[in-house]
Amino acid sequence: MSILLEHAELLLRDAAGYRTLHDGYLGIRGSVIDYVGESAPEAPYARRLDMRGKLVMPGLINCHSHIPMVLMRGIGSGLGLHEWLFETIFPIEDRLVREDVAAASRFALLEMIAGGTTSFSDMYFFPDETVRAVAEAGVRANLNRCVQCFDENQTVEENHQIKESLALFEQYHGAENDRIRIDFSIHAEYTCKPRIARAYSALCAERGARMHLHLSETEREVRECIERYGVTPVAWFEQMGTFDSPTAAAHCVAVSAEDRAILRAHHVSVIHNPTSNLKLGSGFAPVREMLDEGINVALGTDGAASNNNLNLFEEMHLAAIMHDGYHRDPTLISDTEVLDMATVNGAKLQGRDDVGVLAVGKKADLIAIDLSRPHLYPVFDTPALLTCSAQAGDVCMTMVDGKILYENGEFLTLDAEKIKAQMRAALARLYA
Amino acid sequence: MSILLEHAELLLRDAAGYRTLHDGYLGIRGSVIDYVGESAPEAPYARRLDMRGKLVMPGLINCHSHIPMVLMRGIGSGLGLHEWLFETIFPIEDRLVREDVAAASRFALLEMIAGGTTSFSDMYFFPDETVRAVAEAGVRANLNRCVQCFDENQTVEENHQIKESLALFEQYHGAENDRIRIDFSIHAEYTCKPRIARAYSALCAERGARMHLHLSETEREVRECIERYGVTPVAWFEQMGTFDSPTAAAHCVAVSAEDRAILRAHHVSVIHNPTSNLKLGSGFAPVREMLDEGINVALGTDGAASNNNLNLFEEMHLAAIMHDGYHRDPTLISDTEVLDMATVNGAKLQGRDDVGVLAVGKKADLIAIDLSRPHLYPVFDTPALLTCSAQAGDVCMTMVDGKILYENGEFLTLDAEKIKAQMRAALARLYA
Repeated sequence: MSILLEHAELLLRDAAGYRTLHDGYLGIRGSVIDYVGESAPEAPYARRLDMRGKLVMPGLINCHSHIPMVLMRGIGSGLGLHEWLFETIFPIEDRLVREDVAAASRFALLEMIAGGTTSFSDMYFFPDETVRAVAEAGVRANLNRCVQCFDENQTVEENHQIKESLALFEQYHGAENDRIRIDFSIHAEYTCKPRIARAYSALCAERGARMHLHLSETEREVRECIERYGVTPVAWFEQMGTFDSPTAAAHCVAVSAEDRAILRAHHVSVIHNPTSNLKLGSGFAPVREMLDEGINVALGTDGAASNNNLNLFEEMHLAAIMHDGYHRDPTLISDTEVLDMATVNGAKLQGRDDVGVLAVGKKADLIAIDLSRPHLYPVFDTPALLTCSAQAGDVCMTMVDGKILYENGEFLTLDAEKIKAQMRAALARLYA
Repeated sequence: MSILLEHAELLLRDAAGYRTLHDGYLGIRGSVIDYVGESAPEAPYARRLDMRGKLVMPGLINCHSHIPMVLMRGIGSGLGLHEWLFETIFPIEDRLVREDVAAASRFALLEMIAGGTTSFSDMYFFPDETVRAVAEAGVRANLNRCVQCFDENQTVEENHQIKESLALFEQYHGAENDRIRIDFSIHAEYTCKPRIARAYSALCAERGARMHLHLSETEREVRECIERYGVTPVAWFEQMGTFDSPTAAAHCVAVSAEDRAILRAHHVSVIHNPTSNLKLGSGFAPVREMLDEGINVALGTDGAASNNNLNLFEEMHLAAIMHDGYHRDPTLISDTEVLDMATVNGAKLQGRDDVGVLAVGKKADLIAIDLSRPHLYPVFDTPALLTCSAQAGDVCMTMVDGKILYENGEFLTLDAEKIKAQMRAALARLYA
């Protein structure tokens, strides 16, 4: 299949930053962008789409999520963290069955696709069900089965999560034209004893896989780790050999200058989760410092239970303004930096150098924004428009790997009504 | 005209808080709600609307805006406050003509109506043009011509803004079935000399009008006022007699406990502007303290030049989570309190006890939210859904004073295409 997008406002990025090409053409052949230009290409395309009044830009990348948690959207709002987690969320998760994750993954994908997310990194139970949902939906994802261990004498062979993680990697890594990748994952320092953390990190490095973690989300987490091991969680993971693999670390709210030097030295990518950090009272990650130090910072929504949605436009908005307010400096974080976080930086974090920008040779993961909405006019500054004026609902087309998944409110790969019925059934069972 | 909304999820509020009535009926006769119930009313209605799958709730109230500033949306993003204001915004405002404000007011109303705003309080140049736009659009508004004075010897007779303010009040206060009210307004302490502030405040009290101010937006403003007059801006306005009239004070970021005691004693309402305070680096208003002390706190977007939109769903989202993050307490501000800020508290601030809740005898200012969107399901907690899951684009119907202004993407009172053409012409002239 070949598609030509005609008369679009194209959001391009080069070393000098972002620029828009007015009345531009973008050609897609198979899964790849094969033309970007100001005039129509000579080569023929099977389908031509008039994109007048639409901004075509790279798809957004959600680098930290637990998408099946849409099952718990908004539950226990207003509770303290401990009560919310231990008395509300964990008992529900304890009742989860495979069918719940199957239904909820597909349901979450409807929201993500409609909101312009083309790729995501996810950590949750029954990840093989999420793999199947992703395969069916046509989006891109780095998925994992995260490992926990509360017994310091447990061996690799005894840890069933490691077994599942390895099997998932063997079975699905690189599947679906490389749309699906399988990462390794240690849930967090506070949920994994050193013996297993060390052994599993070595298995990750042996396979050349990538690692995904929760890291230094709160000051309490850091304090307790120091009490336990005499070092911060960042230094602990370094000791475990975890950072010998390319690592994505979610949150990093409570990271010192020394911690950040370790992250930088090991090229660890950080996932900033603005809504989750504010809503759970975790605080303000040192995003300006990390960017200045050359750490790759991407964006995530975290789960819908602590957000309460999977909306990267909201995360961009917050990332663009929350630190300016916190540090009393309106120039602290630029809109361009935020747009990078949601696109190219996310691609880098996922180990995917073939997405994140619109350029010839890159995968066609892109979205269109309907510029006819009153809140998107006038356009003096496109990055500012996307971070501080736009909403997820302004997305009118989502394409991944050259295939249109969503157009003008319609899902083309997923049966929305059937998925909603399955979601209703899952909820009825879970909360019976 | 009479309309019956059938089979709606109705968001009701009583002393115990919010509750939803499933499969509810809401009847409107003229501009007033005349029925709310679980079963169909016996009385006939001219029009019946099937609201299955839609949440019907009070319209949102934007208590601090400068709506014609959509002309400057996103301009100068990334500049420091001084450079942005003095080198970018003020020179543009200096070129503004009446036609610009006429076009921009209508254009901004498209955005506000589509995003569920049914009433707003506005401060800008050529307010009579905004009055006409509001009359035509059918929304509710408290408008003002704000007063400034940089000459300490100037008399009331010499201040042309006071003249305009009084004329506006005489001509339009209570117009359009009371949809339009005219407030008095002093721009801020730092832009108004005491003699005029005192005299104009007395004129406001004489007429029984309401006052609208910028107040203690930054620590710098407070420091400079203390240097000038030996008192904080709050204490200064009290000395001027300003608070002898019901007053709405925008921002109140830098207010001490003593300041808040003055605000409370005079029943001053505070407008919290989350995006503007973060984006401009102003900081975090003491919202928890103000609520605990019994101060009425409402919400505002401020102008689109420093926001960069007029989206109250974003303001609700921020108000619900930014203080929790700042104070490291996820329970600090409840979703119910935020929903109150955007509805009943706003109504109180505007001096309108006939809007802000859905109840028999109240004006029919209401909106409908399309619950079929994936990000709005499941619904465990409606206030949490509205503050932390919903987007402005989820609004599928907006009604003010019993009249439908917007339905499924169509504007019924404004000619969107004509307004867009006028807006393009205004921009072309302004930036020629």
